Amino acid sequence: MKTPFLTLAQAEKIAQQYPTPFHIYDEKGIRENARAVKEAFSWNPGFREYFAVKATPNPYLMKIFQEYDFGFDCSSLTELQLADAVGASGDHIMFSSNDTPAEEYALCAKIGGIINLDDITHIPFVEQILGAMPETMSCRFNPGGVFVMSNGIMDNPGDSKYGMTKAQLFDAYRQLRDKGVKHFGLHAFLASNTVTNDYYPELAGHLFTLAREIHEELGIHFAFINLSGGVGIPYRPEQEGNDIRKIGEGVRNVYEQILVPAGMGDVAIYTEMGRFMLGPYGALVTRAIHEKHIYKEYIGVDACAANLMRPAMYGAYHHITVLGKEDAPCDHLYDVSGSLCENNDKFAIDRLLPEIEMGDLLFIHDTGAHGHSMGYNYNGRLRSAEVLLREDGTAKLIRRAETPRDYFATLDMTEFADRLL
Amino acid sequence: MKTPFLTLAQAEKIAQQYPTPFHIYDEKGIRENARAVKEAFSWNPGFREYFAVKATPNPYLMKIFQEYDFGFDCSSLTELQLADAVGASGDHIMFSSNDTPAEEYALCAKIGGIINLDDITHIPFVEQILGAMPETMSCRFNPGGVFVMSNGIMDNPGDSKYGMTKAQLFDAYRQLRDKGVKHFGLHAFLASNTVTNDYYPELAGHLFTLAREIHEELGIHFAFINLSGGVGIPYRPEQEGNDIRKIGEGVRNVYEQILVPAGMGDVAIYTEMGRFMLGPYGALVTRAIHEKHIYKEYIGVDACAANLMRPAMYGAYHHITVLGKEDAPCDHLYDVSGSLCENNDKFAIDRLLPEIEMGDLLFIHDTGAHGHSMGYNYNGRLRSAEVLLREDGTAKLIRRAETPRDYFATLDMTEFADRLL
Repeated sequence: MKTPFLTLAQAEKIAQQYPTPFHIYDEKGIRENARAVKEAFSWNPGFREYFAVKATPNPYLMKIFQEYDFGFDCSSLTELQLADAVGASGDHIMFSSNDTPAEEYALCAKIGGIINLDDITHIPFVEQILGAMPETMSCRFNPGGVFVMSNGIMDNPGDSKYGMTKAQLFDAYRQLRDKGVKHFGLHAFLASNTVTNDYYPELAGHLFTLAREIHEELGIHFAFINLSGGVGIPYRPEQEGNDIRKIGEGVRNVYEQILVPAGMGDVAIYTEMGRFMLGPYGALVTRAIHEKHIYKEYIGVDACAANLMRPAMYGAYHHITVLGKEDAPCDHLYDVSGSLCENNDKFAIDRLLPEIEMGDLLFIHDTGAHGHSMGYNYNGRLRSAEVLLREDGTAKLIRRAETPRDYFATLDMTEFADRLL
Repeated sequence: MKTPFLTLAQAEKIAQQYPTPFHIYDEKGIRENARAVKEAFSWNPGFREYFAVKATPNPYLMKIFQEYDFGFDCSSLTELQLADAVGASGDHIMFSSNDTPAEEYALCAKIGGIINLDDITHIPFVEQILGAMPETMSCRFNPGGVFVMSNGIMDNPGDSKYGMTKAQLFDAYRQLRDKGVKHFGLHAFLASNTVTNDYYPELAGHLFTLAREIHEELGIHFAFINLSGGVGIPYRPEQEGNDIRKIGEGVRNVYEQILVPAGMGDVAIYTEMGRFMLGPYGALVTRAIHEKHIYKEYIGVDACAANLMRPAMYGAYHHITVLGKEDAPCDHLYDVSGSLCENNDKFAIDRLLPEIEMGDLLFIHDTGAHGHSMGYNYNGRLRSAEVLLREDGTAKLIRRAETPRDYFATLDMTEFADRLL
């Protein structure tokens, strides 16, 4: 059972001001969850969540996270610019990128962010751009087939483009040490959207053991170990969500078993969660504008994959609640479709829902992360607004909807301008 | 064997003015192909290609097509605006949309475009918006399991959200006739990117038979039959491409067999090709900026899925030529990757290519359609420029690259503006 965080009356009121479709975020839920994350790791004095900006690059939401002393995990120039614009200090900026252009390392250095090196070849690349190495550097590990994690929760790292091999990692830390780096981080990302409380603790166990081994061999100081993202959310109503308190306790156990006895009890734990921080606290609100009865029953809505691409790209499940019909029987089988000339532009396929009438508002759950941010303009469709539902129940526009003028912005329309815009 | 339409020297010269990555279009190839399409259907006096704007919504390319009297197949508000902006007259605008918002029908009517109705329920919808029905209307057919086409070239229309059933089609034409519509069109889209000369002729045979049946039962005048898109291109070098002359002759044969004897020899053939019109005449030019040696060999380039999403979304094959190494042996096995924090951001997986050095320019073939237009801004990545390679060998910028300012345009950054932009 998934419950929307706003009522039909609230949604209709907001829609009067900000026409559908729009993404809406639940400030209350965001804050409660942020507090829970902080508490779950409060046993670790240096703990910091670096919110994965790519999930939802909105400065108003980033501002909320700053109240919990969170930092920002950035992967590109514009994400670094956003972190800088909201006033994040360098130690609150983690630059976890790959295939990184030179100008992005330069900006990261300028604003003092921490570089998380994806590859050993980036050492000379960074050195050439920056002149000297920063005092703090992190390296990203790709375990290939080295780790064996339980219950099949790991993707196949050997097929993944990220990180360094174990041998390269030792080599990289040695090179960095010899180039004067003082404080080190270790990072690995092994699986996306896990829904098990075991992922972080298992990953932490492997990384702690590895860090201890590196520390003992190279004598370097690990300032932090970065568990990256991967803590997921239950998109389906029958799934049980992660319990961040249990996850935090699980990490604490291995920390006390592995790091503390090695004299590494000062290592800070960092995380780079995006989906877990915002996924469930965002929704796409869209209106039913067409019904169609052919070989299947279709409901056409005013949103499309331009607003939420995960179903089209990954076949991802997003739960749908018809607002005002929360208690009605789900006895109608629908495909819920958008307007793209792409047959994969369907928010739901063969989904049992209450009978939908034209004008009904659909609440598409769990779009708070990798929702608006993955939007595109295919078919000339425009990306929607983002609205923050504040704790007092009022709505604040935190990103306006695109207009045709935005869509045409990169065209020199002077030849055509008298007819356009 | 696929040959790039520009040389390394040309590409480097263009890159000095317009930094990589950029999409480039070959005006010579576009024009030759446009002429071939026109000639292939010259036996049909009313023939018109309505270029599928969604493939590459660029007014400069649309202007080229206008020299061949092509029209525009539009699927959204902004595409209608583009067609209007380049000065297309109403009979040169086909509005083939689905799940259509009211304002889009209103704009289409205002600029005199031809409405291609996706569903029977749109008849009262359109009537309410427009007041009266236009003189010319088209209907879209979804044959479900009715058609059987040879050699498995058809997708499964029964799973497709588009069009009307046969019974609905008869009903729709009858309603439209009784509402005063004078001229009719029939449209069907059954398969995407076919590489067989049989697709259009087979589809045409079915549609001509159906149109004759409808004509005989309802006495309505078919002004055109719209074969829509679906004529594809050979993305892989071992594939043989379509021969548009054979396709045109194939359609002519069934036209003369089916329509002419029924006294319907005045029916115009319309097409809505996008991929076939531009796909092979566009390429993404990108530079190798990183190499990585872990469990596989990677080449990192300065383009990513933000510039070309088809490999990430569909696992689509795009051929790659390393410029200047056209004749070198393809003896290195690479994954060619972009910078997104998505492991599907790879332009090629396990691809044999010549040895690639840092700074090499890669020519990613066949991005002329559904290339730039499918770009997104995930990870805060910016979409690239579009350049036209004119017949005289000079380059013209026809869309500038996005800047961070574009990326932040929908944010009210006043709170943050002193640090951004």
